Amino acid sequence: MWGGRFEGGPAAVMRAINASIAIDKRLWREDIAASRAHVAMLGAQGIVSPADVAAIDAGLTTIAEEIAGGKLVEDEALEDIHMHIEHRLSQLIGEPAGRLHTARSRNDQVATDFKLFVRGCIDETIAGIDALEAVLLDRAEEHCATIMPGFTHLQSGQPVTLGHHLLAYREMLVRDRSRFADARARMNECPLGSAALAGTGFPIDRDATSAALGFDRPSANSLDSVSDRDFVVDYLHAAALAAIHLSRLAEEIVLWASQPFGFVRLPDAWSSGSSIMPNKRNPDAAELVRGHSARIVGDLVALLVLLKGLPLAYAKDLQDDKPPLFDAHDLFALSLAAMAGMIAEIDFVPARMRAAAAAGHATATDLADWLVSAAQVPFRDAHHVAGRAVAAAERSGKSLDSLSLEELRAIDPRLDAGVSEHLSVEASVAARTSAGGTSPARVSEAIAAARTAIAGRKGR
Amino acid sequence: MWGGRFEGGPAAVMRAINASIAIDKRLWREDIAASRAHVAMLGAQGIVSPADVAAIDAGLTTIAEEIAGGKLVEDEALEDIHMHIEHRLSQLIGEPAGRLHTARSRNDQVATDFKLFVRGCIDETIAGIDALEAVLLDRAEEHCATIMPGFTHLQSGQPVTLGHHLLAYREMLVRDRSRFADARARMNECPLGSAALAGTGFPIDRDATSAALGFDRPSANSLDSVSDRDFVVDYLHAAALAAIHLSRLAEEIVLWASQPFGFVRLPDAWSSGSSIMPNKRNPDAAELVRGHSARIVGDLVALLVLLKGLPLAYAKDLQDDKPPLFDAHDLFALSLAAMAGMIAEIDFVPARMRAAAAAGHATATDLADWLVSAAQVPFRDAHHVAGRAVAAAERSGKSLDSLSLEELRAIDPRLDAGVSEHLSVEASVAARTSAGGTSPARVSEAIAAARTAIAGRKGR
Amino acid sequence: MWGGRFEGGPAAVMRAINASIAIDKRLWREDIAASRAHVAMLGAQGIVSPADVAAIDAGLTTIAEEIAGGKLVEDEALEDIHMHIEHRLSQLIGEPAGRLHTARSRNDQVATDFKLFVRGCIDETIAGIDALEAVLLDRAEEHCATIMPGFTHLQSGQPVTLGHHLLAYREMLVRDRSRFADARARMNECPLGSAALAGTGFPIDRDATSAALGFDRPSANSLDSVSDRDFVVDYLHAAALAAIHLSRLAEEIVLWASQPFGFVRLPDAWSSGSSIMPNKRNPDAAELVRGHSARIVGDLVALLVLLKGLPLAYAKDLQDDKPPLFDAHDLFALSLAAMAGMIAEIDFVPARMRAAAAAGHATATDLADWLVSAAQVPFRDAHHVAGRAVAAAERSGKSLDSLSLEELRAIDPRLDAGVSEHLSVEASVAARTSAGGTSPARVSEAIAAARTAIAGRKGR
Amino acid sequence: MWGGRFEGGPAAVMRAINASIAIDKRLWREDIAASRAHVAMLGAQGIVSPADVAAIDAGLTTIAEEIAGGKLVEDEALEDIHMHIEHRLSQLIGEPAGRLHTARSRNDQVATDFKLFVRGCIDETIAGIDALEAVLLDRAEEHCATIMPGFTHLQSGQPVTLGHHLLAYREMLVRDRSRFADARARMNECPLGSAALAGTGFPIDRDATSAALGFDRPSANSLDSVSDRDFVVDYLHAAALAAIHLSRLAEEIVLWASQPFGFVRLPDAWSSGSSIMPNKRNPDAAELVRGHSARIVGDLVALLVLLKGLPLAYAKDLQDDKPPLFDAHDLFALSLAAMAGMIAEIDFVPARMRAAAAAGHATATDLADWLVSAAQVPFRDAHHVAGRAVAAAERSGKSLDSLSLEELRAIDPRLDAGVSEHLSVEASVAARTSAGGTSPARVSEAIAAARTAIAGRKGR
Repeated sequence: MWGGRFEGGPAAVMRAINASIAIDKRLWREDIAASRAHVAMLGAQGIVSPADVAAIDAGLTTIAEEIAGGKLVEDEALEDIHMHIEHRLSQLIGEPAGRLHTARSRNDQVATDFKLFVRGCIDETIAGIDALEAVLLDRAEEHCATIMPGFTHLQSGQPVTLGHHLLAYREMLVRDRSRFADARARMNECPLGSAALAGTGFPIDRDATSAALGFDRPSANSLDSVSDRDFVVDYLHAAALAAIHLSRLAEEIVLWASQPFGFVRLPDAWSSGSSIMPNKRNPDAAELVRGHSARIVGDLVALLVLLKGLPLAYAKDLQDDKPPLFDAHDLFALSLAAMAGMIAEIDFVPARMRAAAAAGHATATDLADWLVSAAQVPFRDAHHVAGRAVAAAERSGKSLDSLSLEELRAIDPRLDAGVSEHLSVEASVAARTSAGGTSPARVSEAIAAARTAIAGRKGR
Repeated sequence: MWGGRFEGGPAAVMRAINASIAIDKRLWREDIAASRAHVAMLGAQGIVSPADVAAIDAGLTTIAEEIAGGKLVEDEALEDIHMHIEHRLSQLIGEPAGRLHTARSRNDQVATDFKLFVRGCIDETIAGIDALEAVLLDRAEEHCATIMPGFTHLQSGQPVTLGHHLLAYREMLVRDRSRFADARARMNECPLGSAALAGTGFPIDRDATSAALGFDRPSANSLDSVSDRDFVVDYLHAAALAAIHLSRLAEEIVLWASQPFGFVRLPDAWSSGSSIMPNKRNPDAAELVRGHSARIVGDLVALLVLLKGLPLAYAKDLQDDKPPLFDAHDLFALSLAAMAGMIAEIDFVPARMRAAAAAGHATATDLADWLVSAAQVPFRDAHHVAGRAVAAAERSGKSLDSLSLEELRAIDPRLDAGVSEHLSVEASVAARTSAGGTSPARVSEAIAAARTAIAGRKGR
Repeated sequence: MWGGRFEGGPAAVMRAINASIAIDKRLWREDIAASRAHVAMLGAQGIVSPADVAAIDAGLTTIAEEIAGGKLVEDEALEDIHMHIEHRLSQLIGEPAGRLHTARSRNDQVATDFKLFVRGCIDETIAGIDALEAVLLDRAEEHCATIMPGFTHLQSGQPVTLGHHLLAYREMLVRDRSRFADARARMNECPLGSAALAGTGFPIDRDATSAALGFDRPSANSLDSVSDRDFVVDYLHAAALAAIHLSRLAEEIVLWASQPFGFVRLPDAWSSGSSIMPNKRNPDAAELVRGHSARIVGDLVALLVLLKGLPLAYAKDLQDDKPPLFDAHDLFALSLAAMAGMIAEIDFVPARMRAAAAAGHATATDLADWLVSAAQVPFRDAHHVAGRAVAAAERSGKSLDSLSLEELRAIDPRLDAGVSEHLSVEASVAARTSAGGTSPARVSEAIAAARTAIAGRKGR
Repeated sequence: MWGGRFEGGPAAVMRAINASIAIDKRLWREDIAASRAHVAMLGAQGIVSPADVAAIDAGLTTIAEEIAGGKLVEDEALEDIHMHIEHRLSQLIGEPAGRLHTARSRNDQVATDFKLFVRGCIDETIAGIDALEAVLLDRAEEHCATIMPGFTHLQSGQPVTLGHHLLAYREMLVRDRSRFADARARMNECPLGSAALAGTGFPIDRDATSAALGFDRPSANSLDSVSDRDFVVDYLHAAALAAIHLSRLAEEIVLWASQPFGFVRLPDAWSSGSSIMPNKRNPDAAELVRGHSARIVGDLVALLVLLKGLPLAYAKDLQDDKPPLFDAHDLFALSLAAMAGMIAEIDFVPARMRAAAAAGHATATDLADWLVSAAQVPFRDAHHVAGRAVAAAERSGKSLDSLSLEELRAIDPRLDAGVSEHLSVEASVAARTSAGGTSPARVSEAIAAARTAIAGRKGR
């Protein structure tokens, strides 16, 4: 494979560290697709004869069938999937196989294959995001008026609706989706034809191979093309941040499923038991989604560190780009699917949620706002009055909306009986009608708007 | 400040860990701008009287002048820049100051301020990228035919042109620029009016504040709005990857400036000496650019870890979003400026570059390609023949293009005298005319295309 | 400063990126201490005259007083603290100042200064850990028999004691302490005398300077000495992992302080309010401790990335070692202090804890264990029976220990009335007497053992 | 497996995300060893009958043989290696298999297994470090007087010896070794007997199982024992920093093997060729070692993020501790072996090294030092004079030691003919006799001291 120059063979350790077939065999579909596009172009340009093109194409088709049928024989001496396929091709068709690598190098070949693979990952991921989005919208619609405590600092702050809470995650997914879409648009340039690093003197047609492989255009600079792994980093960034979003939702599922919260009950299909404690119903899938976010962050870091300080052009360090990408993609695909399944089937417990929302004097803001609106009190002063009302309610063990007129007047003479009707959790939620607010009406509108936006998406 | 509820004051350690004024004072311009937009809207909606609006606006203008004049008095008891400004406002205008915080919370206030700040960082960064791009294009134009070795694995592979090499970095910058632009488009939604987490019952006009502050639209979900720090992560990702790109160029400057390479000489203005070794001319700025990339990666990691597993909505952890952003922005802005300065003023040494390009039998690929084109040898065989030619040249201490016809024939009878003219570095480079290739003609075209693209950019 | 070789001055950007005085001025004490040790040795070895030694030492003493008094004038042209001090020395004492730098370089000087600083950080950190450990032991002693739910997967698993739970964190701190102590022992070798990278020809006495500065011995290899930043990474690793431990405790405080848990009440001194919601009592300090762990992880990453791929010996990238260390140390010191304060003053609410421990059938394991011990049922079968008991209790809305004999027999005939007395949370906890177990007796023993171990610590 | 409580089965996605058998089967040896120790103890304590103990032990022995023989049948429904083994045991021996899990839980079981595994990794790693250390010492001995340029900032600074340079890496390895040894000592406490989280009521003997499994003592707190993954983080930290050290050596190999440096020639066994460029001899193994450091840093980050913010005790997130550890260990073991192989067989090219050392006026420091010693010039002044000498030599195209007396006097009248003999690279190196310095005599002493230290190591 190395031509006539090397006398000794690689040491065993060298072979072990150098071989990547166990990893990059996953690129076989992309490698064959790119080779077929390449040889078709070589034929169209008259660089390889029609007969040889036909032989190579038929051979590649056969190899694809063989690998799909589980017949790839891994051999570390052949290093990587590219050499495995070319070697098998020469077994199948003999001498013409040697013409396939005309006007290309493994450097542009692997960049092309891996871009095709990552592009496929992006498309799969967007489909997974869309599926989770659909589940969130359905559950949000079902619960657009279900009241739960809205927490900040995990302290009960103001009552909100469960539908509104679920839609917050939908917003994150919308950003995640656009991040993947942006990454796809940015990376969709074809490196094939960059050859080793300098381009080639053969009269190739890069527009043809680019179009055949679904790229928007050929890449603009051959040195950059073989050195660039931005597309991997962009994928990993999008996956890491999206996984962090899922870790937040997972954390909430874990919290909500705990006995003190009791906001949800996970169905059996999404729970695990204990090998020792018969009473357990563990939210394992949510915890694993949360855990997977950590590994995906680690994968992103690996790629950034990998690239740091590398001079141009290709360096073998870049071979380590694949394990983190494969790992992150598999973990994130599973996380999306698990989260969609859990959210679809989780049992919400509205009674527990409402009870928690009513505790903690969560409508104190409404009292302050009433003072501003009804009595023209500056908000800062109103906030102070409401604070004293909370302290009074705490002392007497009452809820804010059950303080008597006498008690209210003792706190501040500007309070009157009219305020109480504003202090139930239902009134509080219904009042929050500002754009993007938590009132059921706003939540319903938001769901409708989301469905319209989804219907308007074309293709990706 | 906390209303009437707390009896004790915060402990000293609590005050130290809780206060953020030393950090977030950097947001003062944005805080005042957002407050002015907010109070104008409150006035337009009839929530605050015209007189109070005028008083508040005048007070904020005065405060802006004071802070610009260095008159901010930091007080940890006032915690953050938002409280400093509101407190000063109440000193200046009294009771109406208490009406400014109507229908908003620090949660949406800080999200708005920080978005404005990050948006400004993006705009500055894009300007810095454009400046470096311009320098790269100028130097590439100057050296579109200067020959240097093209390395892979830091081994001399094929000769390339310096202009082509510099343009590879321009390609990275183009992607960096689009990454920042995408981040800007994704984040440009206004959180103001989300209040604490649930929206508000006051009849606010979020479209008005959004437009006044240059956002594309109000954000869609109040819970998400106060919990979202995606815009910080997107900025840090774009900065980290761009900084990694600069680390690669910095590495090359360090290499090229070393005595064994000698491809460049750094001017005095960009060199440092040694406190002990009088002979040194150190590429400190390049090393610092490389080093800064590490810290920016650390900043990105900090934000991802920060967000992991946080339940909705706002949590105080989010206060730790600012130091990494400020750090990364300052380091990256300096890195861009330093790199532009170095590239603009660096002295390239073409003679050393050409000599290195000619060493190492870097035109062996041309020999193989010639066999394919002139003698219809399959590339794999041609590659083998070329390998033997390299071995022969090494043994005889000659360059490939000075092997005699007899020597060539001894290697393979299909080689003839015609091949030698293809084996000079000039011929090799000139031949690589495929799209994106290294030939001077292609480089000149690429520069022209870049200038056209730049001229077509509107605004950002 | 650069000797006679440079004609041009550094560009403004170069000056900005190159100057480190704003950062490394924090090393002034260490720089002066190391310089005094160095010049004393130069005098003892006859390399510098007694008179010059005296002048230099007096000058350095004066400078220390000046800087302590706030009189350091920062000047970017003087780059760093080392040059500031030497420059000031030459102003104060003239020509002899030029002899201080004999037989050393900034490379070994900065390595020595920074090691001294980091060593000081370790000592401070260990003291902070010890303080938190003391608080944990006191609170654990107070609550060695307080019953709370023991969670796995945040599901109630088995009842445990609060003292036992707090001691789990004490175990983490013991490991953290040993990690810092190991780092200290490993790094305590003096680089001074390594000069630029190769050592020196002056007849210096490295044992003398090493001893004078409290090091265990001189470092063994001059090239390594100026390139090594392991001590920074070791510190950051120890701080990051310890901060992660604190993040777990902080998470628990946040959980426990939430209304649904209600296991603790944070005193006013450790709570914050809301600018909008008068009802809030936010655990800000705990959240900030959790958040700070993220930034410390980022600092660790920065250092690892910084060092990746740097050839020997010193490179200017290493100047970026200080900001992450300073940041991490400050954040972690504050985190330790805040956590000690919170744990010392937090109000535990035993009634809520016990009620939660009794919910969720948390003594189901005791039922299974009873079947194994009293009826020789294999554990796997016993676990199955206990599972059916939990299901039965859930159906009938009873707790496990209130199931009637009839109900028990219906589940499994091997169950008899004797089992019930084992199924209270008190009985469950009391039974767990295995070494390291949660029974109050074991907890008391563990506290006593800890106090003995602490009393036996000498010095660090 | 989950007892009698669940009616539905896990969904397919749940099964996929929850099953860990594909990963944790690697722990089978440790799982069987720990189970054998556990059941032996249960027998000795009278908790399980001798006959059942014998049956269980024989069954486990059979299973070990089966798995060693490749007969493990993976079944996702059995989740993990622990369940696979217990399930197989019940197939083999029936009812007594159900007694093995008495007084333990998967939580302490997996902690014990994984600690045993990581301890084994540490021992293997230390052996790998020792092997590389031996190679470095051999090559250093061979080259204790071979002169090469000593670089700072990759600029030629002062001449050093190659032996000295190699010993710098030996120093890093000594620290790496101690870091692994410290981690081993800190983690060697046995969690077995901690049960689910609270300990157990069975009269177990934790000292017995701890001793049987080679631990120093039982762990002190059951809650901590099942939640602790410090030992994984410590391993990953030690591996990451050691891998970063190897990345520095790898970077140097890549640099040295480049044509401009030419300091080394990699033998065929450690080189790769190109699929397109017949002239290439690529240092792939060195690049992969450098690349692997990035992935190991990513693995460390993954673990830290994983643990952040987890409440006690065990959470399923912790299942994600294994892939990063396995990945890092495999990569680092291969990196150590590859580096030992490369360093053992690399051909150094002393002539190229010496020539590079003599270029760049690298003895200017010697000139300055001579002025200090011979003419009592303050070092700062001497440094200035030497700088002018470098400038003069550059102008006249001479080396420093070939400047004529006249030229020297023109620079500074205090220079005389005696200085020249100090300015050869051999004289410069020989003069650096300070402790830890680069002179051949010091290098030989350092090697001897290292060999003595190695001989004195007992066991680990």
